Amino acid sequence: MDTKIADVRVTPILIADPALLNVQGVHQPYTPRLIVEVVTEGGLVGVGETLGDSTYVNIARQLSPIVRGRSTTESNLLPALAAAGADVDVDALSSATDTAGFRGAQTEDKLRLSVISAFEVAMFDALGKATGLPVHALLGGKVRDSVEYSGYLFYKWAEHPQAGAPGDDWGAALDPAGIVEQARRFRRDCGFTSFKLKGGVFPPDEEAAAVRALAEEFPGSPLRLDPNGGWTVHTSVAVARELDGVLEYLEDPTNGTPGMAEVAAATGMPLATNMCVTRVDEIQEAFTRGAVQVVLSDHHFWGGLQRTRELAAICGAFGVGVSMHSNTHLGISLAAMTQVAATIPHIGYACDSHRPWQTDDVITAPHRFTDGRIEVTDVPGLGVELDRDQLARLHERWERMPDMRDRDDEKGMRLVDPDWRPHGSPRW
Amino acid sequence: MDTKIADVRVTPILIADPALLNVQGVHQPYTPRLIVEVVTEGGLVGVGETLGDSTYVNIARQLSPIVRGRSTTESNLLPALAAAGADVDVDALSSATDTAGFRGAQTEDKLRLSVISAFEVAMFDALGKATGLPVHALLGGKVRDSVEYSGYLFYKWAEHPQAGAPGDDWGAALDPAGIVEQARRFRRDCGFTSFKLKGGVFPPDEEAAAVRALAEEFPGSPLRLDPNGGWTVHTSVAVARELDGVLEYLEDPTNGTPGMAEVAAATGMPLATNMCVTRVDEIQEAFTRGAVQVVLSDHHFWGGLQRTRELAAICGAFGVGVSMHSNTHLGISLAAMTQVAATIPHIGYACDSHRPWQTDDVITAPHRFTDGRIEVTDVPGLGVELDRDQLARLHERWERMPDMRDRDDEKGMRLVDPDWRPHGSPRW
Repeated sequence: MDTKIADVRVTPILIADPALLNVQGVHQPYTPRLIVEVVTEGGLVGVGETLGDSTYVNIARQLSPIVRGRSTTESNLLPALAAAGADVDVDALSSATDTAGFRGAQTEDKLRLSVISAFEVAMFDALGKATGLPVHALLGGKVRDSVEYSGYLFYKWAEHPQAGAPGDDWGAALDPAGIVEQARRFRRDCGFTSFKLKGGVFPPDEEAAAVRALAEEFPGSPLRLDPNGGWTVHTSVAVARELDGVLEYLEDPTNGTPGMAEVAAATGMPLATNMCVTRVDEIQEAFTRGAVQVVLSDHHFWGGLQRTRELAAICGAFGVGVSMHSNTHLGISLAAMTQVAATIPHIGYACDSHRPWQTDDVITAPHRFTDGRIEVTDVPGLGVELDRDQLARLHERWERMPDMRDRDDEKGMRLVDPDWRPHGSPRW
Repeated sequence: MDTKIADVRVTPILIADPALLNVQGVHQPYTPRLIVEVVTEGGLVGVGETLGDSTYVNIARQLSPIVRGRSTTESNLLPALAAAGADVDVDALSSATDTAGFRGAQTEDKLRLSVISAFEVAMFDALGKATGLPVHALLGGKVRDSVEYSGYLFYKWAEHPQAGAPGDDWGAALDPAGIVEQARRFRRDCGFTSFKLKGGVFPPDEEAAAVRALAEEFPGSPLRLDPNGGWTVHTSVAVARELDGVLEYLEDPTNGTPGMAEVAAATGMPLATNMCVTRVDEIQEAFTRGAVQVVLSDHHFWGGLQRTRELAAICGAFGVGVSMHSNTHLGISLAAMTQVAATIPHIGYACDSHRPWQTDDVITAPHRFTDGRIEVTDVPGLGVELDRDQLARLHERWERMPDMRDRDDEKGMRLVDPDWRPHGSPRW
């Protein structure tokens, strides 16, 4: 069996991103991702993808020589290998990016796990190719033939204020009518039947009005709203009550487990999170306090596909729902999310994906959503093939644009509002 | 890849068992086990083993035709397949056996999981042979090269009172000196450096004296005592305090989560269990109450190797230790336990195994413990080969002895004490 890892390649890239708005500011025109390839002695290539800020790239570059010479069957060893061999500069990441805590609290171990995830996925992809099995079969097998995703709606500007930013044909969406129009296109192009609105951008009553407009346009469609912790407990309770029966769940209305627990206790609204539960050691408090009813797993944060399955098991034991969070990602991660989601019986919600917003990809046959779903492929590995021309082009962009290598959603905002500052405390 | 299941064979057997004593009575002279074989279209055979009472055999016989035609990569489907196709007579099992609750509370799902476990292990064994990979590599890879087991000490009679019962050369062990002598032989033959005493047989002060004698004979060796829920909370607290600093942990001193929580709260003694946490839906209450500090997983109860890994992850998230429970088992299960234990980083205690008490086996090269450990084999599958002559011999015994097919530890006791009755409430 061709499982020995002869080489590891780590390629940081920049991918184009529309001017999508959130509580922290506006997406950069280009956002960093990191592509990991493991190459077996027999020449099989497995691919993985993760967050691409400098901190992650640095960890991946330290981990690569350690993984070389190991086997694609040894993914359980990755945490110990990384802990022993990869230094992490937590402060560098915290100061450069994510001041709103999108990625949750940062620790050395968590940053390592985000990098490990790409290695683990790449190892599973290569192992699948070596054995002739799809990745889901290496995780005990799929329990469904397709995975449902939701349409990820964003307030957005027509164009990014930064000179040279790439354009898009979506236009602006800055009010309920714009959000409904965006959702119509998502429904038409991808068939999504559930929608998530990224909030925390406008005053909560405007965002609630957008949700109500969606409910009117798409009766019966599950809807979610995610202000990324931008609200106080008081505001969160008020919005939760107002949208009772309209939202499927409310995602991270306020920041931190104690506040989430207050909101949950005061309302009947199910609360989802990808901010207050992003590490194993955050689970116990959140679950025992009843702070969250749905955990949005993210195989990047949690350290890979096996850890995602374990998280789902933990949620199941405590009666907490499970679905999937998305960060801006390409087809490798969409394939990985689909393979692992297919193996988890109790994923009860459509998973999130930014994928339709990304025009770049690094695979030869980018996915298409049909009826809001991605089919679970049975071809060996992840079922994707690296497009080396695209990879080279996007890496060359990374080489050319050092100021884009650490995602910072505040910079673009300050081009419009020079006094813009991140919101350490809730905005509303 | 040769993964399609062309045939399934289910073979109930009876294996010889010494006259080992417990809170419920005395082990039968022969105890039932069930051997499951899955045969691929290419003729590869994967083997699994589980509890063999009639209820389990009935479930397995219903599940077999359902599994035929599926793939060895589809183990995640087993619970749904079994729920849809295998009827379970819970009452039949509850009334026939296990009146002391050794196997925890019974439900249809749990009984199905105990059978599923043998199918899942057999599927992994066959998949390992098809891919050329050891089972641990199909679970993310081993993190250790050998797995430690503890010496499982029992009070025992020199011989079983039932006519025709098989003999053994261990002699009686009915007091501290006898237990120490038994431990010496275990140390000499198998190299065990930690010991577990099955209690609940004699008054607690006698069993505590045996533990103290062990501590004196084997200074520094981790020691456990397991009265199988035979004590009141009051007695449990008293023994826990008396053996503070002597025991590594106290296992199931009293029956049920509320009582265990009381004992844990009143003492500093870590409490282990394989009785009050044996199903996923028992975890939340036990963990939030702090009732148990160590869960003794049992891949038979929990539904297989993947579910065992998930249980370990749940324990890890809640700071609860994890080790492994044993029921009377043969080499197939010992191989399965070793393979899965090798993949779990935070197994922090020597696992339990009855294996040294069993003179029968169904594999061609029965395991030997060295320094109390079993090496983690890297050969494809579980690394065991079925001994068909032995299997046929033990099945023929099952055919010949219908009165042994449902384990009942009370029957033998009544040959000595006609008034012996199971203890629905604590004995001491």
